[in-house]
Amino acid sequence: MALKYAVIGSGALGGFYGGKLAHAGKEVHFLFHSDYEFVRQNGLQIDSVSGDFHLPHVNAYRSTAEMPVADVVLVCLKTTNNGLLGKMLPPLLHPGTVVVLIQNGLGVEEDVATLFPRQPIAGGMAFICSNKVGDGHIAHLDYGRLNLGLYRGDVETILQQVRADFIEAEVPTEVSADLMKARWQKLVWNIPYNGMTVVLNATTDQLMKNESTRRLLHDMMLEVIRGAGACGISIKESFADKMLEMTDGMTPYAPSMKLDYDFQRPMEIEYIYTRPVQTALRAGFDMKKTAMLEAQLRFISTR
Amino acid sequence: MALKYAVIGSGALGGFYGGKLAHAGKEVHFLFHSDYEFVRQNGLQIDSVSGDFHLPHVNAYRSTAEMPVADVVLVCLKTTNNGLLGKMLPPLLHPGTVVVLIQNGLGVEEDVATLFPRQPIAGGMAFICSNKVGDGHIAHLDYGRLNLGLYRGDVETILQQVRADFIEAEVPTEVSADLMKARWQKLVWNIPYNGMTVVLNATTDQLMKNESTRRLLHDMMLEVIRGAGACGISIKESFADKMLEMTDGMTPYAPSMKLDYDFQRPMEIEYIYTRPVQTALRAGFDMKKTAMLEAQLRFISTR
Repeated sequence: MALKYAVIGSGALGGFYGGKLAHAGKEVHFLFHSDYEFVRQNGLQIDSVSGDFHLPHVNAYRSTAEMPVADVVLVCLKTTNNGLLGKMLPPLLHPGTVVVLIQNGLGVEEDVATLFPRQPIAGGMAFICSNKVGDGHIAHLDYGRLNLGLYRGDVETILQQVRADFIEAEVPTEVSADLMKARWQKLVWNIPYNGMTVVLNATTDQLMKNESTRRLLHDMMLEVIRGAGACGISIKESFADKMLEMTDGMTPYAPSMKLDYDFQRPMEIEYIYTRPVQTALRAGFDMKKTAMLEAQLRFISTR
Repeated sequence: MALKYAVIGSGALGGFYGGKLAHAGKEVHFLFHSDYEFVRQNGLQIDSVSGDFHLPHVNAYRSTAEMPVADVVLVCLKTTNNGLLGKMLPPLLHPGTVVVLIQNGLGVEEDVATLFPRQPIAGGMAFICSNKVGDGHIAHLDYGRLNLGLYRGDVETILQQVRADFIEAEVPTEVSADLMKARWQKLVWNIPYNGMTVVLNATTDQLMKNESTRRLLHDMMLEVIRGAGACGISIKESFADKMLEMTDGMTPYAPSMKLDYDFQRPMEIEYIYTRPVQTALRAGFDMKKTAMLEAQLRFISTR
């Protein structure tokens, strides 16, 4: 059985991943916002390091009320828009629809699970460098790997099929046995780099070159690893060294929160900072540096 | 016996306190830097909330080598210039000269004591809002209290005489029984506000109005109090509440480090951050938030 996909949030992430699926012949329905009219007329253009392509005809909608029910909903919104999901998702759901939250941070599945108490839910993390560069126009600059994981429901088979569809669409995709571990692992990078680049108005390489901030980034990684540990999730301390090494190998980079800040968009403070801090604190560990960065970001976000 | 004073660093602090002593008829010799010529010709002008005054003739020098030996040296330099003291002080010292470090932070007496192993040393903290507004021109805007304390040497009597001289000069002055406690107490305010106003490019009142940063400032105060505690110095946690209250009562304020940053002068990171963090760490307490702020400031200072 072919899966029918809905993509909510067709920007840098959703436009790319949905576009790849559609390009591979899968049935994909996209929710667009500001560039709905443009995409209806001109389709979707993906400039990608792994090959450019154009989708002249896209199933584009401006409201989920107009969209067909889907088997898989890929939620690719910024988490700052998750308050909309309660109203957006219902038209897309049948009892077996898997809602896949391809989003940053911790706690997104929990919140959607509370809103939709019987819906199968999965999470996903995108390791990708892509930008929306214009109406219906996505630039995929580097990476692209997807890491999916089940949160709730008896839908391992569907998730494996999603994985197979993505692999067919040439998107390297894994299914993690432990979604929460995968989320905490991503936080080991996201927590130090996102906030520090914003607070210090710097790129990753500038922070890495300075001895003081380099040590601080490492300390914060270890703090996140200990936060995970308090929550029963074991990540080796050497993982922090790997992340430092990986970042050393990256080109100078502005993480998503830095781009949000620079373009005066809301920052994903809640799910990247507040929820991990709260979660670890409930488990008995005070992520002091992360909490401090959270407070600094909260201050900056009110500017 | 009348004390002979030398003032090293005749800016906002030294110009004011030395000026007050000279105005009260004490013998004061001032080391000037850029405004030496101006002061030789025009004297020193102090605009003060407690009364303006002009000193037409000031004992002004441009090098300590030209200055007479003093009984009391008031070091009013920014600590970022303390590297100069090894060369600057010797011409001013007789065996009983008390070097009084009226400076911010922790560790200044320790360093001067190492440089001059037999010299009597005291410390001082100035609770004052004053600025150098032009050549030979100081504006004293608010407060002014001096808190002195003995660091080393059998010179309690001299310190009491310094206090009496200042009181005669209408500068409210105390001598603390415990200099290190007084220094840590001042750090309870200095550590959170100095660095946070720089990193977040904000005034004190903006940080106090925001719920997140207000809580962070309080947390950092408690961390400093615990750092002091690890070093055997007992400060009540309620002292943090007093500091918050005091700051609420202040007019919007840029701490000295913020002014240094705004005017692209070196920041006093070493003695306000690094040394307290190191001192507490040696005593077994990790001041995590203070260390984080230190790293952020070190990064900013290299810009």
